[in-house]
Amino acid sequence: MTPETLVTVATSAADGHDSAYVAFALAVILFAAKAGADLVVRIGQAAVLGELLAGVMIGNLDLVGVNIFEPIAHDAAVSTLANLGVIILLFQVGLESTVGQMLRVGWSALLVAVLGVVAPFALGWLVGMVLLPEAGSYAHAFIGATLSATSVGITARVLQDIGKMQTQEAKIILGAAVVDDVLGLVVLAVVTGMVGAADRGVDFSALSIAGTVAKSSGFLFGAIALGVWLAPRVMHLASKLRARNVLLATGLGFCFLLAWLSGVIGLAPIVGAFAAGLILEDVHYKDFVSRGEHGLEELIRPISSFLAPVFFVVMGARTDLSSFADPSTLGVAAALTLAAILGKQACSFGVLGKGVSRLAVGIGMIPRGEVGLIFANIGLTLTLGGRPIIDQRIFAAIVLMVIFTTFVTPPALRWSLMRARS
Amino acid sequence: MTPETLVTVATSAADGHDSAYVAFALAVILFAAKAGADLVVRIGQAAVLGELLAGVMIGNLDLVGVNIFEPIAHDAAVSTLANLGVIILLFQVGLESTVGQMLRVGWSALLVAVLGVVAPFALGWLVGMVLLPEAGSYAHAFIGATLSATSVGITARVLQDIGKMQTQEAKIILGAAVVDDVLGLVVLAVVTGMVGAADRGVDFSALSIAGTVAKSSGFLFGAIALGVWLAPRVMHLASKLRARNVLLATGLGFCFLLAWLSGVIGLAPIVGAFAAGLILEDVHYKDFVSRGEHGLEELIRPISSFLAPVFFVVMGARTDLSSFADPSTLGVAAALTLAAILGKQACSFGVLGKGVSRLAVGIGMIPRGEVGLIFANIGLTLTLGGRPIIDQRIFAAIVLMVIFTTFVTPPALRWSLMRARS
Repeated sequence: MTPETLVTVATSAADGHDSAYVAFALAVILFAAKAGADLVVRIGQAAVLGELLAGVMIGNLDLVGVNIFEPIAHDAAVSTLANLGVIILLFQVGLESTVGQMLRVGWSALLVAVLGVVAPFALGWLVGMVLLPEAGSYAHAFIGATLSATSVGITARVLQDIGKMQTQEAKIILGAAVVDDVLGLVVLAVVTGMVGAADRGVDFSALSIAGTVAKSSGFLFGAIALGVWLAPRVMHLASKLRARNVLLATGLGFCFLLAWLSGVIGLAPIVGAFAAGLILEDVHYKDFVSRGEHGLEELIRPISSFLAPVFFVVMGARTDLSSFADPSTLGVAAALTLAAILGKQACSFGVLGKGVSRLAVGIGMIPRGEVGLIFANIGLTLTLGGRPIIDQRIFAAIVLMVIFTTFVTPPALRWSLMRARS
Repeated sequence: MTPETLVTVATSAADGHDSAYVAFALAVILFAAKAGADLVVRIGQAAVLGELLAGVMIGNLDLVGVNIFEPIAHDAAVSTLANLGVIILLFQVGLESTVGQMLRVGWSALLVAVLGVVAPFALGWLVGMVLLPEAGSYAHAFIGATLSATSVGITARVLQDIGKMQTQEAKIILGAAVVDDVLGLVVLAVVTGMVGAADRGVDFSALSIAGTVAKSSGFLFGAIALGVWLAPRVMHLASKLRARNVLLATGLGFCFLLAWLSGVIGLAPIVGAFAAGLILEDVHYKDFVSRGEHGLEELIRPISSFLAPVFFVVMGARTDLSSFADPSTLGVAAALTLAAILGKQACSFGVLGKGVSRLAVGIGMIPRGEVGLIFANIGLTLTLGGRPIIDQRIFAAIVLMVIFTTFVTPPALRWSLMRARS
C-alpha cells in the first residue's frame, strides 16, 4: 500500500465514509441526469423520464462488462442523499399548494384515494391467486399491497416538468396520492402484521387492524391542525433571530420534524414533508421577505434541483435488467402491470367536480415508483415458517411492474392533460 | 414487534438507512445551529462559533444523562451530509475568488503556507520529545503532522460572517490555507509512509518522499491549468441542453469531479472543490445569466446555508468533553495548543506586500478544525509493532488543541481585522 492510498483509506475510515467516492458518484449522477433529461426533452417527454433512464443505464453497465458506475446504485451515502432528495421534493411540492386549496378538493381526493387503493389491492390478489396458486394467500395479499400505493414523487415531477402543477387535476392527484400513500402504508402494516402473527401462530385481531388504521390516518389531520396553529408562531419567533439564513433553516427544520414524526408512527417520511410544505404559506414568513430576503419556495428550488435528480437516477440504477431474462417472470409482470394500471382507473369514479379530466386523474395515479420498490423489498425480508413471503421471481415481476408504470405515466399524463385543455 | 415498528424497521432496512432518523437529526441540527448562532451573534461573535458550541452541547448531553441527541455525532448518514457540506462550502468560497486574484497574492500565500507548515511541525515534534519522551520519535513526528494543516473551512466561515472575504488578508489566508492543506497532507503521507515502512522493517526512501511531494503539489496547478481551458467549453456545451437547472448541475458536477480527483491522488476532497470554485467565473456562464437564470453563486448559497451548518454542528458534536478529566492530558493539550498558535505566527513573516495585517494572517491560519481531527483519527488507526502510533491520551490532547484553536480564532480574527481597518 502506498502512503497516498493509506491516507485515502485511513481518512475515509476515520470519517466512516469515503467523501471522494460520494463526490465521484454525485458528479456521474448530475452529468448523466442532465444528459438524459436533454435527450428525452428533445423528443417531447418529461425530464424525469430521462433521469430514470440515465439511472437504468448507470445501474446496468455491468451487463456490458463496465462496472465502475454500477456500485453507485447501492452506495449507502448516495442512498442517504437520494432519500433526502425525495423528502425535499415533496416539501417543495407541498409549498406550492396551501391547506385551503387541498381542502377544496378534499372529498374528491379522499374518494379517489380509497378507490385507488381498494381496486389494485383486489386485482393484485386475484393475479396472485390465478398465476401463482402455490405461493399461498399471504403472498397474494402482499402482492396486492405492493400494487396499492401511488408514487407521488414521479407524478409531482411530471406535473412540474409540464407546468401543470396548478390545475384541478394536479391538486386532486397530489392530494389523493398523499392519502393513498397513508392508506397503502396502512394496508402494508396490516398485511405484515398478519404475516407476523401467522408466523408466531397467533391471530391478528380486528382491534389491531382498527388501531393501525386510526393511528395512521389520524396523523395527517393532527399534524396539519397543529401545524397551522404552530407555523406562524414559530416563524414569527425565528424572524427575531440575529443569525443569517434563518428562514431556510426554520422551513427545512419544520419539514424534517414532520418527516421524522411521520416516520415514527410508521408512515413514509415523505408524507410529513408534504404536510409541512402544505402548512407553510407565504404569509407566515412575510417578516423575512419584507426585509428583502428570498421567499422559501425560491430558497428550496436550488436544493431540490440538486438532490431530487439524485433520487430519480438512483431509482433507475437499482433496476436490475438481467432479472427479466426468465419468460414466466415476464408473464407475471405483464399481468401485474395490467392490474396496476386498470386498478388505478377506478380512481376516475371518485372525481366529484365537473370540468376535470377523469382520465388524467386515473393516469396520474398509475406510477408505483419508490413506494412499490420499498414494499417489494420488505416482502423479501418478511418470513413465514423460515421462508421469505415472496420469492425472487415474484420480486422481479413486481420490479418490472414498477418500472413499467413509472415509465408509462409521464407521456400518458402529459397527453391526457394536454388533450383535456385543447 | 408491532406492525408499525416492523414497517419502519423493514423500510429503513430496505433502504440501507433510516430516513426518518436522518430527518430527526437534521431538524435538531438546523434548530440548534440557528439558536446557537443567534446567541453568539448577540455577544458580537461569528455565527460559526455558535454552531460549533451547539454541536458540543448536542454531542455531550450524555454526560447529563440525556442521550437522544448524542448518537447524531456518529450517524453515518449525517456524517455524509457533513462531508458534503464542507465540500459545498469550499466550492462556494472558491466561487467568490478568481484564479487571477489568487495568482496576485500567490507568492505571499506560498511563503505563508510553507512557514505555517514547517514551524508548527517542528514545535509539535519538540512538545512530543519534551513531554512524551516514552512515545517514541514516530509518535513525535505524527504529533507534528497533526499541527501542520490549517482548517480553511473555519476561517472561511468567519471571514464570510464578518463580511471580510474580499480583503487582501482573506485572499492570502485562503490561498495559503489551501496550499497548506496540500503541504499538510504531504507531511502526513510521508509520516504515515515512514511508520508503515518501519512496521514492515524496510526503509522509506528519499525517492518515495520526493514522489509523494511532487504528485500532491502538482495536482492543484495541473487541475487549475486544465480547468481554466476546460470550464468555458463545458459551460458553453451545457448552455445548449434543453433540460432545466443545467447551470447548477454542471457547476456542482464540476466541483464534485475535482473533489473526487483530489481524493484519488490522496488529497482532501475539499482541495479539489476549492479549485473548482476558483476556476469557474461569471464569464463562463454568461449564456445562462443572459437568458434570465440565476448565477452560480446565488444558486449555491441556499445549498451551502443548508449543509455547511451540518458540518460545523457535527464537528462540535464529535468532541467528547469527558476525555479531558485527566490533568496530565490537559498539560499536554496546553503545550500543543501553544505550539499550534505560536507555530502559525511564523506565517506573518511570509507576507510580502504592504498594508496587510500580518497579525490577522497569522491568526487566520490558527484553526485546525476538521483536518486536525481527521489526522488524529488516522494516528489512532496506524500501528507500529501491533500498537497504535498514538494512544488515547495523546489523542485527547490533540482534540483539545483542535477545539481551542478553532474556538479562539473567530474572535481573534475579527478583532485583528477590525483593528487593521480602523
